Amino acid sequence: MIIDIHGHYTTEPQALHRFRDQQLAGLADAGRKPKSADLGITDEELVKSVEPQLRFQKERGSDLTIFSPRASGMGHHVGNEAIGREWCRVSNDLVHRICTLLPENFAAVGQLPQFPGAPIDNCIPELERIVGELGFVGVNLNPDPSGGYWKSPPLTDRSWYPIYEKMCELEVPAMIHVTGSCNPAVHFTGAHYINGDTTAFMQLLQGDLFKDFPTLKFVIPHGGGAVPFHWGRYRGIAQDMKKPLLEEHLLRNVFFDTCVYHLPGIELMARVVPVDNILFASEMLGAVKGIDPRTGHHYDDTKRYLDQVNQLGEDARWKIFEGNARRVYPRLDRQLAKRGHPGRKTA
Amino acid sequence: MIIDIHGHYTTEPQALHRFRDQQLAGLADAGRKPKSADLGITDEELVKSVEPQLRFQKERGSDLTIFSPRASGMGHHVGNEAIGREWCRVSNDLVHRICTLLPENFAAVGQLPQFPGAPIDNCIPELERIVGELGFVGVNLNPDPSGGYWKSPPLTDRSWYPIYEKMCELEVPAMIHVTGSCNPAVHFTGAHYINGDTTAFMQLLQGDLFKDFPTLKFVIPHGGGAVPFHWGRYRGIAQDMKKPLLEEHLLRNVFFDTCVYHLPGIELMARVVPVDNILFASEMLGAVKGIDPRTGHHYDDTKRYLDQVNQLGEDARWKIFEGNARRVYPRLDRQLAKRGHPGRKTA
Repeated sequence: MIIDIHGHYTTEPQALHRFRDQQLAGLADAGRKPKSADLGITDEELVKSVEPQLRFQKERGSDLTIFSPRASGMGHHVGNEAIGREWCRVSNDLVHRICTLLPENFAAVGQLPQFPGAPIDNCIPELERIVGELGFVGVNLNPDPSGGYWKSPPLTDRSWYPIYEKMCELEVPAMIHVTGSCNPAVHFTGAHYINGDTTAFMQLLQGDLFKDFPTLKFVIPHGGGAVPFHWGRYRGIAQDMKKPLLEEHLLRNVFFDTCVYHLPGIELMARVVPVDNILFASEMLGAVKGIDPRTGHHYDDTKRYLDQVNQLGEDARWKIFEGNARRVYPRLDRQLAKRGHPGRKTA
Repeated sequence: MIIDIHGHYTTEPQALHRFRDQQLAGLADAGRKPKSADLGITDEELVKSVEPQLRFQKERGSDLTIFSPRASGMGHHVGNEAIGREWCRVSNDLVHRICTLLPENFAAVGQLPQFPGAPIDNCIPELERIVGELGFVGVNLNPDPSGGYWKSPPLTDRSWYPIYEKMCELEVPAMIHVTGSCNPAVHFTGAHYINGDTTAFMQLLQGDLFKDFPTLKFVIPHGGGAVPFHWGRYRGIAQDMKKPLLEEHLLRNVFFDTCVYHLPGIELMARVVPVDNILFASEMLGAVKGIDPRTGHHYDDTKRYLDQVNQLGEDARWKIFEGNARRVYPRLDRQLAKRGHPGRKTA
């Protein structure tokens, strides 16, 4: 089974965008607020909206996509906290419906109603709802709800602890994923996303968070930002800071996805990052939509790159494509087992 | 000849730190301002202070280091603009003295008295002074003088144009280098530096700056941040934005140094970045000071990694170690020729 752990609902129906426009228009003119959070989207429309994803799954050879609302759409810095909470709920509910309609193809990950300066505690009810009531298997956590200005304390700060306690209790990992940037100096997919990954990794390196939360799990997307390319730098900085080796200090808790859109990048990852820490992902229909004229294939068809990394043996491939995902997302593993897809016994 | 294009004066005498302390203490208590900008450092002390650099040059096999004030010391966000201007001048003057004392070992690059919100025009007199009067061959330009909050417009904004006009007139390139971070979420060498590189590259990708300044040259340090690791992402984003190929769009004007502290990272660079755009650099005695226990060598001994990249032929090596530096820093090339080190004729 091939599990793609990083997909966003980037083919959402226009009705969702209309709702968001009305929400934000309502800030300026209360008469324009949406009348209802019922978007009137039918199941048929939802299934139709993810046909591109289903086609790519078939064409590229993946089975299941871990699916969350559009990352840039989370917009934690936009509007106010109440509007954000409603938006979050509506966005999560749509993802839930898709995953319920197509359980063999999608497993749900949610967004949180984070808001700049608001305590993370305010996100706990939504986390409990999506995991406890809706069966979500993970959550996206934004280390910079200010949208490109980095006004929150680092992820190792105690102010974040309430969400970590709840994540551990519920056995869900977080993908550390920023949302859009409202900073004109920082492009969202070309700078903010990658910087977010790099910054989060460095925050974790500086701290000792996993002493307090030994079972907490984070996935850093986009191949870990700059981290694998600068693996020697991070090993050396950790050493200068008298931290343990990265393997002991971070790698029981921190994982990287494979959203790196060329073969040399994927080869580098496979060389420097331990195989237990690499999870297959493509973020298809996301940041880069084109076809690479050098290969004739989509840039974001990352399975092709992995298939070309010759030094990966069968066991390593199984870990990257399935085993690690089942380990990092234990609720997904149990859902799959219940539906007749048991995992492999590991040594 | 082996030219290391990225070195900072990180072994500065304590007298410089005392001066800075007094400067900043003077903000709170005017009576504590430094009495004079003459630090009383002798030539002998200066030469002694760079013995570590001279020893590494000999041991590692480089000849000349392009040398600028400590990057994190620039502190553009610290104090006020007048204090920053004095600090900049003192810092540049020390580098100038070292390069005058040891011209075979060091060539000078300066810092600018940038200050958050102040027009870049205010930096032109110092740029004219260091290049015109002191013989500097380049300059460091900070894309984020706010120190980790990214409050300036992107480098493609017209507000930056006055410094570009002067750089082109004077024939000096800029290394795009942030300074320390005053943002507790963003570690300086582990996040801000690398994010600065990535962000600057993306700003340039989004814009069309080099249509207006076809001879302007930027060096992006630390291997270009995350860029080579995500080369496919950037090629794809440029394509989605209907920009020309990166080669035409940016690579006549944008260069990357080799401050990447492990062999796989350097190998990746050599595979994806055209050889004409790679300049040898180590930033020795900088961000990572330790010895890698896996190799028994310093992480920042980047020449060793390049020497192990087998696919680089003799001509490519000459470009990376010398030729590209002479092309990007034409004033250095002329200084070297005058001192009896003519460059190689290129095809």
